[in-house]
Amino acid sequence: MNSELNNIPHRRYNILTGEWILVSPHRTKRPWQGKTEENKSHKKENYDPSCYLCPGNTRASGDTNPDYKEPFSFKNDFSSLLPDSPEINFKEGLLQAESERGICKVVCFSPDHSLTLPLMQLEDITKVVQIWKKEYLELGSAEDINYVQIFENKGAIMGCSNPHPHGQIWSQSSIPTEILKKSLKFREYWEQHKNSILSDYLEQELEAGERILDENEHFVSLIPYWAVWPFEAMIIPKRQLQHIGQLNEAEEKAFAEIIKKLTIKYDNLFETSFPYSSGIHQIPTDGKYYPEWHFHMSFYPPLLRSATVKKFMVGYEMFAGPQRDITAEQAAARLNDLPEEHYSNRI
Amino acid sequence: MNSELNNIPHRRYNILTGEWILVSPHRTKRPWQGKTEENKSHKKENYDPSCYLCPGNTRASGDTNPDYKEPFSFKNDFSSLLPDSPEINFKEGLLQAESERGICKVVCFSPDHSLTLPLMQLEDITKVVQIWKKEYLELGSAEDINYVQIFENKGAIMGCSNPHPHGQIWSQSSIPTEILKKSLKFREYWEQHKNSILSDYLEQELEAGERILDENEHFVSLIPYWAVWPFEAMIIPKRQLQHIGQLNEAEEKAFAEIIKKLTIKYDNLFETSFPYSSGIHQIPTDGKYYPEWHFHMSFYPPLLRSATVKKFMVGYEMFAGPQRDITAEQAAARLNDLPEEHYSNRI
Ligand SMILES: O=P(O)(O)O[C@H]1O[C@H](CO)[C@@H](O)[C@H](O)[C@H]1O
Ligand SMILES: O=P(O)(O)O[C@H]1O[C@H](CO)[C@@H](O)[C@H](O)[C@H]1O
Repeated sequence: MNSELNNIPHRRYNILTGEWILVSPHRTKRPWQGKTEENKSHKKENYDPSCYLCPGNTRASGDTNPDYKEPFSFKNDFSSLLPDSPEINFKEGLLQAESERGICKVVCFSPDHSLTLPLMQLEDITKVVQIWKKEYLELGSAEDINYVQIFENKGAIMGCSNPHPHGQIWSQSSIPTEILKKSLKFREYWEQHKNSILSDYLEQELEAGERILDENEHFVSLIPYWAVWPFEAMIIPKRQLQHIGQLNEAEEKAFAEIIKKLTIKYDNLFETSFPYSSGIHQIPTDGKYYPEWHFHMSFYPPLLRSATVKKFMVGYEMFAGPQRDITAEQAAARLNDLPEEHYSNRI
Repeated sequence: MNSELNNIPHRRYNILTGEWILVSPHRTKRPWQGKTEENKSHKKENYDPSCYLCPGNTRASGDTNPDYKEPFSFKNDFSSLLPDSPEINFKEGLLQAESERGICKVVCFSPDHSLTLPLMQLEDITKVVQIWKKEYLELGSAEDINYVQIFENKGAIMGCSNPHPHGQIWSQSSIPTEILKKSLKFREYWEQHKNSILSDYLEQELEAGERILDENEHFVSLIPYWAVWPFEAMIIPKRQLQHIGQLNEAEEKAFAEIIKKLTIKYDNLFETSFPYSSGIHQIPTDGKYYPEWHFHMSFYPPLLRSATVKKFMVGYEMFAGPQRDITAEQAAARLNDLPEEHYSNRI
């Protein structure tokens, strides 16, 4: 259907942000003489005495981790946001600043230092989903917390400073830019169609098929039509839920399952522990009513051609707008061609 | 004036995009155990027989570079945009795409392979300004070209695949997201105040002083109040010009001079060839009237703590919004403390 787009420069519209993405599929032919990344694939130990996230170890702050057996969360020792910042509202001519309050947490996914989400057992990933849910609800009901951003930076190339499987949660009083953009688009569509734009999009994608990666009873994973990162993917719940606090037990498990399958495909793509930043976009916790929202999880992985060559979002991308080389359909086809079993089990 | 902001998490408003930036100045204390970059400082030769940008050499396309003595531009052999893409307007339900036409060029700043802007002679940087001006006017008057993005990716860490001093120009038929955002803000302010928002901002910054880096007869460089990258800087012409095509001879030279002085400071900061992406934002070339616009050049450098530790714009930044650790005032003070002479001349 979109095959004529596979060879010509074009731009695609992101229905959730209202922004366009430049796609240059003919450009994949260019040679790469630039920076390559190290491909560290050495096996990690289950326990690392120098890791500040392993059970029982002492962290930089001096606190000692409990001997945890399940996903474990704690307040970030170097939080970007603090709950008790003094109230400041500064406005002088064209300069405008205001203090921001928040709580930052670290979520260890597993006590086992050597694991990553794709290598974890399904039931243990389900426990990660459950701790995200608990944190979202707890942080969201704290005073002054109006938005809770759950995310993971995986891999050194994504600024992750510790290979122990973990993610972060930054929760804060103001509502961040990306959420404001999406709220606007969800709202516009809702007012016109009295339906979630993502529900309608999902229906259209399931019919088209060419960007679908995986589907189970409660979730679908796909490469969004407007993907920016080479193998960017999105996980969407079939039921229109505003936030993960609404997941029932079966949905928690189905969410864990589709995360596991997606991240296994990612690892299999270049037979490396595939780096990415992932995050969940859901409704603000300001107590307002957001019937239009539909939560979703996105993965932004930088690798483009191999385990060592990434896509740089620089010059043009910073000053004009995002650009990608392969189309969303090509990315989906590449991932769909891969085995479902993790490559490390096959060797 | 903003000293109370130097220790508490806050957010600042970007008057040109309408977006907020999270600033966490207390966070600079955290230790860094993450990824470090290589610091290649080996001296480059004036001529590299394997470089596809050196005079007289043959490029990947098979074309041979002339024996150029001055800045030299040519059509990018691996252009992201092509002038003759077939016209496609695809809209089916929630999927929307359209073909994009454009012309991409490479601009070699100097025949000398070993140089970079801060190491070039003032008169040679002036010639770079002149070729940018010529290209902006020529590309801008080509059919179907409604916006011309001039930029430079400097350093391997910024996706630059060739160390020969060069920049790029991507020109295209649609107007990119970042320009649309700024146009809106310029317009809003113009309608209310009948003045350029950047002229008024500049006046306020010159009065405050604490974010000013440099000033000459025609230009000012400063760390914008809402800077995102650790040492992000902006060069603003004092006269409200809509585009670089309007620069007179004295202004061309003053522009070159302020670029040279800023990039020397950058190199001196960590005594390394300082990586960045820079770009010029100016009016679309669609023939419309943009009295509100005020062109400016920005530098987005990723290094944070040293020549090997950069700021990662990942997880939170991708999903919520930009975050920085040091304040704009701290960054300006660091740069202002440095010598004006390039470190390589001093050793
Ligand atoms: O054209 P180059 O220098 O090969 O490529 C570089 O600049 C482009 C424009 O910012 C980016 O799209 C690429 O990711 C980057 O590697
Ligand atoms: O908190 P960490 O893992 O040390 O830091 C990492 O994630 C943060 C949130 O995305 C970023 O601001 C940092 O640049 C990145 O290095």
